[in-house]
Amino acid sequence: MTKTADKKTARTVDLSVYRQPLPNSRRVYVESANDPSVRVPMREVSLARQQNGAAREPVVLYDTAGPYADPDLQIDVYQGLPKLRRQWILARGDVEITAGGALRASAGKTVSQLHYARRGIITPEMEFITIRENQRRDAADVSRITAEFVRREVAEGRAIIPVNINHTECEPMVIGRNFLVKVNANIGNSAIRSSIEEEVEKLLVATRWGADTVMDLSTGKDIHETRESILRNSPVPIGTVPVYQAFEKVGGRIDKLGWDVYRETLIEQAEQGVDYFTIHAGVLREYIPAALNRITKIVSRGGSLMAKWCLHHKQENFLYTHFEEICEIMKQYDVSFSLGDGLRPGCIADANDAAQFGELRTLGELTKKAWAHDIQVMIEGPGHVPMHLIQENMTEQLKHCHEAPFYTLGPLTTDIAPGYDHITSAIGAAMIGWYGCAMLCYVTPKEHLGLPNYEDVKQGLIAYKIAAHVADIAKGHPGAQMRDDALSQARYDFRWADQFNLSLDPETAKRYHDEELPAEGAKSAHFCSMCGPKYCSMRISEDVDVANDEMSEAAAA
Amino acid sequence: MTKTADKKTARTVDLSVYRQPLPNSRRVYVESANDPSVRVPMREVSLARQQNGAAREPVVLYDTAGPYADPDLQIDVYQGLPKLRRQWILARGDVEITAGGALRASAGKTVSQLHYARRGIITPEMEFITIRENQRRDAADVSRITAEFVRREVAEGRAIIPVNINHTECEPMVIGRNFLVKVNANIGNSAIRSSIEEEVEKLLVATRWGADTVMDLSTGKDIHETRESILRNSPVPIGTVPVYQAFEKVGGRIDKLGWDVYRETLIEQAEQGVDYFTIHAGVLREYIPAALNRITKIVSRGGSLMAKWCLHHKQENFLYTHFEEICEIMKQYDVSFSLGDGLRPGCIADANDAAQFGELRTLGELTKKAWAHDIQVMIEGPGHVPMHLIQENMTEQLKHCHEAPFYTLGPLTTDIAPGYDHITSAIGAAMIGWYGCAMLCYVTPKEHLGLPNYEDVKQGLIAYKIAAHVADIAKGHPGAQMRDDALSQARYDFRWADQFNLSLDPETAKRYHDEELPAEGAKSAHFCSMCGPKYCSMRISEDVDVANDEMSEAAAA
Repeated sequence: MTKTADKKTARTVDLSVYRQPLPNSRRVYVESANDPSVRVPMREVSLARQQNGAAREPVVLYDTAGPYADPDLQIDVYQGLPKLRRQWILARGDVEITAGGALRASAGKTVSQLHYARRGIITPEMEFITIRENQRRDAADVSRITAEFVRREVAEGRAIIPVNINHTECEPMVIGRNFLVKVNANIGNSAIRSSIEEEVEKLLVATRWGADTVMDLSTGKDIHETRESILRNSPVPIGTVPVYQAFEKVGGRIDKLGWDVYRETLIEQAEQGVDYFTIHAGVLREYIPAALNRITKIVSRGGSLMAKWCLHHKQENFLYTHFEEICEIMKQYDVSFSLGDGLRPGCIADANDAAQFGELRTLGELTKKAWAHDIQVMIEGPGHVPMHLIQENMTEQLKHCHEAPFYTLGPLTTDIAPGYDHITSAIGAAMIGWYGCAMLCYVTPKEHLGLPNYEDVKQGLIAYKIAAHVADIAKGHPGAQMRDDALSQARYDFRWADQFNLSLDPETAKRYHDEELPAEGAKSAHFCSMCGPKYCSMRISEDVDVANDEMSEAAAA
Repeated sequence: MTKTADKKTARTVDLSVYRQPLPNSRRVYVESANDPSVRVPMREVSLARQQNGAAREPVVLYDTAGPYADPDLQIDVYQGLPKLRRQWILARGDVEITAGGALRASAGKTVSQLHYARRGIITPEMEFITIRENQRRDAADVSRITAEFVRREVAEGRAIIPVNINHTECEPMVIGRNFLVKVNANIGNSAIRSSIEEEVEKLLVATRWGADTVMDLSTGKDIHETRESILRNSPVPIGTVPVYQAFEKVGGRIDKLGWDVYRETLIEQAEQGVDYFTIHAGVLREYIPAALNRITKIVSRGGSLMAKWCLHHKQENFLYTHFEEICEIMKQYDVSFSLGDGLRPGCIADANDAAQFGELRTLGELTKKAWAHDIQVMIEGPGHVPMHLIQENMTEQLKHCHEAPFYTLGPLTTDIAPGYDHITSAIGAAMIGWYGCAMLCYVTPKEHLGLPNYEDVKQGLIAYKIAAHVADIAKGHPGAQMRDDALSQARYDFRWADQFNLSLDPETAKRYHDEELPAEGAKSAHFCSMCGPKYCSMRISEDVDVANDEMSEAAAA
């Protein structure tokens, strides 16, 4: 981290908010039986004792909050997080250290997880993910998802593990449709607002509330320093759109933008540790006229820049023509491709059109090229799509992109609710997650209106954790419904605190309850303010249960 | 309205908030060419002029706000709303006036819309609905939905028009899967909180934000007076669960509850003007053991009361055994059945089980009995259902209930997000609406936690207007996408005010935008704070469009 960034961060980031454990939660680690250096963090929620005084089995949850959620760790935001993966990477013996201090593959080596997976190697990253996806305290019980299964999904390109060898702070996670559905949160400044400190805090808000990856989409000032602060403090993979910084470097002049400055930017970001790059290499000249024949034309920032570049230079998209050279760079750091959908629809009228599906086929072609270099690939998707057209997106993506993981923005199922697009899009996200989408890019309530603040980031995340979770349940992911059942049992038992603590947002659940019934005694009351004591169906059910038992006993006697 | 209610209402209900038109909106009426007494209220949103100075076609929207949204009308909350339907009802010559002043069918007559529809009569109510569903200013253009189509859907039981002859203030609306998906909002006090004035204000909040019907679920004090205030001020149909008041009348004693007090309550509510009754006549003794074999047992208030009654009295549910007598009462006032799902699942683990589907078959049997009396029927549905089990609910309901309209609560697709159940359930509601559900009962953020306040009612409604609208789009309802396209065009054109004004919640959209860019000039700026000027994809698209046109012209020259 640069000195400047250090000073600014020191001044304003107050970590105490983010280090406060969630109610009744504690950090636990599940250690791998095969590799003691693999210790997977989880959040354990303890529950009220049973009526007979016996302890109740705590619930163990997947945790994205990283070292911040471990009160035993000292964290210095100037130094960044502990370098969890560094020993694993060095132990593989295939990297060298650059003059600038970054890690890079030794000459002739490829350091991607796909490379290892294809060679039958189960890496510590894969061990870590195996335990993490099983969401159990007992590491020995990997009956549900095995390390070999993780390796095979990666080897076959159906899943990716986005972990740049220079992002050693990152806790490994997997993106693929046979695993838990993941959620990405976008942060980053714009020319209008935001500072480095704000973006680091947005990262902490995002990971506290469940972001599995974070994209830094900064386009304002201090792009390099902002990203450095984010990377050094992030326990989750970080994605970027490198053309933004390249465009900044040429002063925002499309005539100056080209391969040289882009190449330099890729290397700069790869050496910092960015885990995946969104690259709009599928925006070909031939698709542009169809995209301009729409209500909202081109709504991807990167896509519109590349279209402008093509028309200005009267040349094919340089990201497409230089694709092999891009691969040569990315394979040296294990940066994954997130092939951008520059022509995604920006309103429901524009969904599933020739421009969108034309680009999708090109992304499929590029997927094969990247795989030939052992580079991991996921594919970005829409956008705005009405419900009846969502499944076609998934089907076409699987077909044309050879089952590479799909990563969609929503999709929003209507255009008429600015201010509530976390909801319009959670509907589409839940559905496409069920159909097989591997990662959902969140949408905040501020979408279309302005840059999200901390509360917007949280609201977007909660909506998307809901979407991802309901997709996991519908897909039948092993163990996904465990949390629902534990919470519902607590609800039936009137264990109010357990109900709050098992929920996605314990503070809000408790606050809403307490608006009407703040007294401590109400936390064990067999009713709430919605129905009052006499009309509580669950309380009446208790009576029915007793009466039914009595009748059964009488009948048996 | 009773004196007491008058005084209380007079003291506290400030109508000015609810009579303020939404931004750039004005009330218009579309008159029927066939019947000048049929004048259908709509909201017309005017848009910015075109760049050449020409006016832009305004957008006409379905409006549930009733007379409150017409600034030309004087409204006195003591007197209630104008009695729009009274002349239509009296003109049919089939009613008499009771000693208490209520309307009732003359001896031997049936006054239901189903009765008229089956006899080939197109009522003024059906004319009204035809214009309303078409959502056009030009009443002559009924190319999309015709009055004959409305009549036939009602005659065949696929749609209902819930309009008690004593709720003459009601603006007719239709519930059926070949029409716009409707939204119900629940209000009503509990023993813990709420007053008559609060409930009237909740009604006004609900209809302002798009509630198509409102259920008064009061279980606290002043049940009769609260309902009277609501009915006299409601432009939308009102539903109730009569067993709540019957249970209050016997002091909450299950041993005293029975047919006599229930019958008296039905007549009392029918004479007041309640448009539909939720009646849990399908909770049979045989289904109770299966329901008790669940995590959350019985979660319907009415369902749990009836189960308790059956076990206490060791008799079959009296709503089932007295069903014919219930029909004899309801047909005299055109009260519609909303056959309650007393055994709906209260958590996803309990979905689609033997108790739920057993009751559903009984509801189908009762539907046929009600239809034999020419009584309109809809069927209530779940509840909590994971995504992959939602479609089965719709399929089973259509099959066993002979295509009577389905009216579901959500369904919630997960149990883990108390505080956000408007979102967990909007996902399920959107899907079941697409599959054919006719009306969606909203869920507010307070569900499971407490009684909703005004803001909760609004938040629940916005989430459900989204769900209903995305279902309309997915079903291909004629004209549903018009609003989306108009808003998206405004978005592309950077007509910020038009974008806000066409949205479901103009105030929130504008407030979010203005958090960062409050200046008036920003309302015509070709960017927002999310991307800033240089990275606005739509601004760049304008450049691309110009460049593309220039190239095309150059190529043609």
